[in-house]
Amino acid sequence: MTEKEKASTEEKVIAFILYPGLTALDMVGPLEVLTTLQHMAPEHHYRTVVVAERVQPMESDIPLKLTAEKAFEDVPNPFAIMVPGGGKPTIRAMGNQAILDYVLSTAKTAKVVGSVCTGALILAAAGLLEGRQATTHWAYYRLLEKLGAHYLRKRWVEDGKFITSAGVSAGIDMALYLTAKLTDEKTARLVQLGIEYDPQPPLGGIDWSTVDRDRRRPELMRTIKEELAHRPDLFHKLTD
Amino acid sequence: MTEKEKASTEEKVIAFILYPGLTALDMVGPLEVLTTLQHMAPEHHYRTVVVAERVQPMESDIPLKLTAEKAFEDVPNPFAIMVPGGGKPTIRAMGNQAILDYVLSTAKTAKVVGSVCTGALILAAAGLLEGRQATTHWAYYRLLEKLGAHYLRKRWVEDGKFITSAGVSAGIDMALYLTAKLTDEKTARLVQLGIEYDPQPPLGGIDWSTVDRDRRRPELMRTIKEELAHRPDLFHKLTD
Repeated sequence: MTEKEKASTEEKVIAFILYPGLTALDMVGPLEVLTTLQHMAPEHHYRTVVVAERVQPMESDIPLKLTAEKAFEDVPNPFAIMVPGGGKPTIRAMGNQAILDYVLSTAKTAKVVGSVCTGALILAAAGLLEGRQATTHWAYYRLLEKLGAHYLRKRWVEDGKFITSAGVSAGIDMALYLTAKLTDEKTARLVQLGIEYDPQPPLGGIDWSTVDRDRRRPELMRTIKEELAHRPDLFHKLTD
Repeated sequence: MTEKEKASTEEKVIAFILYPGLTALDMVGPLEVLTTLQHMAPEHHYRTVVVAERVQPMESDIPLKLTAEKAFEDVPNPFAIMVPGGGKPTIRAMGNQAILDYVLSTAKTAKVVGSVCTGALILAAAGLLEGRQATTHWAYYRLLEKLGAHYLRKRWVEDGKFITSAGVSAGIDMALYLTAKLTDEKTARLVQLGIEYDPQPPLGGIDWSTVDRDRRRPELMRTIKEELAHRPDLFHKLTD
């Protein structure tokens, strides 16, 4: 075996799943963390990749189009998968069979199956979170429960090889936790310093006592009716 | 004046500058914050846009290509500009006359001129930070000083209409501060809740007492020699 073949055998690919309309920060936060890990600690052989149904510019929730590096079929056996979330486009993606098939087939052999924000709903739609502890964006917790997961109000939740994180920015915290777990604390601190993650929210943290987690429920029910009527299995569970 | 014309007159455009190789999170963090502001508080008439020299997929520091929405010439008079940073590609961008020209011409009339991370070096290369207080990624502070700014070790620094933030993830804090300033605290809290920004770094914050801010100096000097030899004005200031 040549040195190059050896390196490629040892390589542990972390595949981020891109789909149209997703929340860009859900993907870019943890992707920045784990790509920094790749560059700062090459001896650990992690390599990030972005995969999608098609390699072409896709809309996101911000005025920026995103293009994946590879198509699903080009990355059949990643070490880890990571599913970002979003609003309505993520509800739509729950009914996209190409995404569900890729998540299901890669989850079988992946050592880590992760999500950010409502990406957990895609894992749950694929049946992967049934009976598992998990989390998601605060406004979507009930949908996660309806798909059989035990929702926890935490920044990230680990259950076996599954790791789910709360809304949007929580993916950064989760990815740093994962970095420490996959390598060591020293490496995770180097990565944290690289992206200068020393947060100082100008108004402090969120006061959860003021948050009604059901406030977006009517809007979510409308979205499910619009986007998932062609998937009676999911539709009945979510609107029951 | 029709309602539509009135809305367009009132519109305050926040233009994020994209260039090849930049650090994606530098852009996407604050862009997510300010686009959430646009959607959650449309009555304030902010609208984000991503501008670049060319509207075509560009490499970033992560395995994701990014495509701007508009070319520089299509957004000549934004309300605000925001310049993200990066590593070597940002040093290269400091010598890109199209970027410097756009920054200079828009900064004249913009009400807010901002940067994330080493994006401050682009503002400084355009001569905009001379004699001003500013900040940047910790490893690049000396370059900022050599271009005439007074570097402060802070998460973000405001000096007149200029607002600069520290490395990568600091753009999120700065953008939330800006949201509160441009609207009100209640709106900023809504935006913060939308992106669930309630950070919990798994290993805590950064212990700055252990950080040698000059550790990347030899590497930076090499990069400047490689990328800015054709700009003697900048080259001499930076290597002096």
